[in-house]
Formats: sequence, C-alpha cells, structure tokens
Amino acid sequence: MSTQRYKCMIQYDGTNYVGYQIQKNGISVQEVIQKALKKMFKGQKILIEASGRTDSGVHALGQVIHFECPANIEPIHLQRALNSLLPADISIKHTERVSDEFHSRFHAKGKKYMYRVDLNRFADPFKRLYTLHHPYRIDLVKLQQALDKLVGEHDFTSFCSTKTIKEDKVRTVYQAKYEMDEEKNELVFTFVGNGFLYNMVRIFVGTCLQIADGLKEPEEIDRLFEVKDRNEAGPTASGKGLYLVEVYYDNQFLEKLEKRTSPPWPMKK
Amino acid sequence: MSTQRYKCMIQYDGTNYVGYQIQKNGISVQEVIQKALKKMFKGQKILIEASGRTDSGVHALGQVIHFECPANIEPIHLQRALNSLLPADISIKHTERVSDEFHSRFHAKGKKYMYRVDLNRFADPFKRLYTLHHPYRIDLVKLQQALDKLVGEHDFTSFCSTKTIKEDKVRTVYQAKYEMDEEKNELVFTFVGNGFLYNMVRIFVGTCLQIADGLKEPEEIDRLFEVKDRNEAGPTASGKGLYLVEVYYDNQFLEKLEKRTSPPWPMKK
Repeated sequence: MSTQRYKCMIQYDGTNYVGYQIQKNGISVQEVIQKALKKMFKGQKILIEASGRTDSGVHALGQVIHFECPANIEPIHLQRALNSLLPADISIKHTERVSDEFHSRFHAKGKKYMYRVDLNRFADPFKRLYTLHHPYRIDLVKLQQALDKLVGEHDFTSFCSTKTIKEDKVRTVYQAKYEMDEEKNELVFTFVGNGFLYNMVRIFVGTCLQIADGLKEPEEIDRLFEVKDRNEAGPTASGKGLYLVEVYYDNQFLEKLEKRTSPPWPMKK
Repeated sequence: MSTQRYKCMIQYDGTNYVGYQIQKNGISVQEVIQKALKKMFKGQKILIEASGRTDSGVHALGQVIHFECPANIEPIHLQRALNSLLPADISIKHTERVSDEFHSRFHAKGKKYMYRVDLNRFADPFKRLYTLHHPYRIDLVKLQQALDKLVGEHDFTSFCSTKTIKEDKVRTVYQAKYEMDEEKNELVFTFVGNGFLYNMVRIFVGTCLQIADGLKEPEEIDRLFEVKDRNEAGPTASGKGLYLVEVYYDNQFLEKLEKRTSPPWPMKK
C-alpha cells in the first residue's frame, strides 16, 4: 500500500509536558500526537519527526513535524480529525502533503525563537506559565551591546548544555534583538539562527539578563566565545518563557531579516 | 491590642481553584490567602472577606478583599510579605489601610465583569483556560439587540442559578456590550451592574450566544424576563472565560459609563 507524507505546523502550551520528545519520565508532545494518529489509523503505529526538540515547559507557536500516512487524505480533513483527538493544549494549525523526500529536521534552514520576560514588580498570575518574572531595572544599552555580539558565526560551546551529544558547536545567529512591550511591561527577545544547540537560547537569555542587570559587562560575551566553557556563562533561563516561533525550509527568511537588530531604546508599539 | 483593617485588590488565575470561597471539595482562593496570613502572623487565624464569590475556574483581575490585621504595618510591606507567601497564581496588586467601617461586600456599589470568547476555527492552546471556544459564525446585529435588552432594572430570575439562596432577583445592569478583538479573533463581553446573581453573567453569555448563533431571536430576552424560569434561558457558559474586572465603592463609575453600549458592528482597534 502506498503512503502519503504530511507536514504539519503545530502549536502547543508546553506547561504539562516533559518536552517535545518521547521520554520515560512523563508525557511528551510527540507521544500524545502519535497516540492520536494511532487511534485514527486503527492501531497502526505512526512515527512523527519534528524540526527539533523543545524542553520541558517550552512552548511552540510554529513547530513543524512530518509523518507517513497509510492513506491519502485531504490535508484539512486529516487536520480536523487529528485536532478532535488531541488535548486542548496541542493544536495542528496547518497541514499539507509533501514529497517523500521532505524531512522536518534535516531540511530546516533556520529557526526563530522568542523569549518573554515579565518586568512587572509583582508577578502577573496570568503570565506565570508563559514568562520569566524578572522585576529588576535593566540597562537597555548594555543589553543591546550584548545581543549585537551574539550575532554572527561563532563557536557557542559556552552557551550549550554539557548534556549535548553534538560535536560541532559552530552556529550562525542572524538576529538577536529585544523589544519592549510597554503595554504588557514585557521584554521580548527574538533569536533567529541556522540552528540552536541544547539550551542555547535559554543560556543567551540568562547571560544577557546578567549583563542588563549590571552584573557583567557586554564584553563578557567576547570572553565566553574565547573560553568555550558552559560554567562561565549565565544561568539557563526558565523554559516557560521560551517559544519556538517558526522553522524555515528555504533561505528566503534571510532576506526579510532587518540588517540591524534592535535600537538601544524601547520601541513604542 | 488594637487592630488595623486593610483593603486589598487581588488578581488570580482561577484554573486551579474550586472558586473564591472556602469549600470542602478542594482548594479555594480564600483558603490560600488565609493560610498565608496565618503564616505571617504566627498561627493567628485571620478571616478575609471578599466583594463576592467567584466560581470554579473563574478569574479575577480586580477582586477586592478586606481583613483585620493584629499589627499596623505599612501597606506596601504587608503586600510584599503576602505576595512572597502566595502561590504564583494569586497576586495582591494594591493594599491600603481602611477604617473599621469598610466592608468589601456590603459597601460594593457595582461590579464589572468581562467574558472572553475565542472565535478561532481551531482552538488556541494558549487560550484553553482563559476563553470559551466558540468557532461559529455569529450575528452581531442580533447580539447587540439582545445585549441592549439586558440593560436596565429587571427581575433576573431566568438568569440566575436555582442554587441561589437570594430572594430578591431584581438587579440593575448599567452596561452590556461586546467588542471584537480582531487581532486575537476574540469576542469580548463587558457587563457592569449594581450586583450580579449566582451564574448571572455566564447565563447572559450562554443566552446571548444562542441568539448570536441564530438559534433564538433577541426578543427571547423579553420572554425570559416574563417567564422567570432558569430552565428557559440558555446554558451557563464555562467559568474559564469569565473575569471579575473591578469592584466599585462609590457611584463615580456610573458617570464614566458610555450611554450607549456597543455599536452593532465590530470595532477596529
């Protein structure tokens, strides 16, 4: 029987999951989607592949997965059926047929992440699962300088969890910027790169906030590129503030990126 | 020893609570705050009073409570200490000293509620605890007509849970309107009144959505005022879309209300 490969863009609230990937210690997003597919296809096991993992508590606005279906179904029908079987914290937002060659991880050319920081003095109860609470005065000029230093091709060993199995720690960051959402009193980071190492965005945020707090100077980033030691960088910021926003499969996204990152002052909305 | 009375404005995400008021079947907001006060005052039991109950899953952006403190503490110090003892889904936003006469429930002159409805075709994972998902085409002209009929002094027996113990079902609704948040694809109701019966706002929303869906005509509201029977009205809309926004303690809020409710068309932001 011939099969059909599908690509789906999915969103999830990562709060109740041990992360994207199947693990022994709890329920993962992958496991839940595979169970829904199994139910749909009468007990047939279907493996899904994603653009990459996300950690426990990390959210996705645009994760991409692919899988082989034993039947050739209209994408919108497949999507509706799957959504009706999935819990409310996971949603399939877009579905399309792709060729058997397409691979969500191997063919990814780049990714965009967002990280939300709640600057309110007293933490907002509605943001507790969706932002890092950081009620301190921050130096936006230094923050901008630090972010500018992250852009480019670098060896990011200092910004990568030692638990990684990847040998090559060289990646290119195309964009590292912040915006101030003054209405919500939030600092929102955006990072775009050709690939991100294990915990890389969270260590970027932990280190940049140290610099914004005045605990370190922006030149710390240069030193971290030199020393190549995870222990020298800032803490791994909480997973709950992190969102996988988009996965790019061709290089058009590079043309759309602004040349400069962000201005060294808060942007009015 | 003399005591000092405090008034606090509090926010909470109602998701993990059986409601505001202490109950046997689970953890309530009241219980959690009283435990924090007890810890703060070395085992002394302090009873808190609120402007009113909120149901299971219902949220508050501006609930008001009051209580007697065995010590006269600077309001901001009391607030900081309490917030440090409270879980992240409850937050004290404002604290002030009040006279021993002040009562958060008896002195309330009015209340404002909001109800959020997610109109997206596929439910948004990040809104599942904070909105009602209602992915149907709605008739905004009929919705407006229904809302207009709710405004004024009426006997709201048909819009009140039969579980109520209150005899007098006459209340005044000062404002009943909707706004379309087109960015979020949300329908947002606002209700302002001198008091609301048990489940009243949720039955308003359940009934108004039936009318907006074309299942009933706006004149249904007139009929419901006549029949005075809860069973004749629409369903009680889910608690998770409901927010207690503000409690008013003087009549100035009446002057600020717009005369007309909302226009019979979506408002651009």
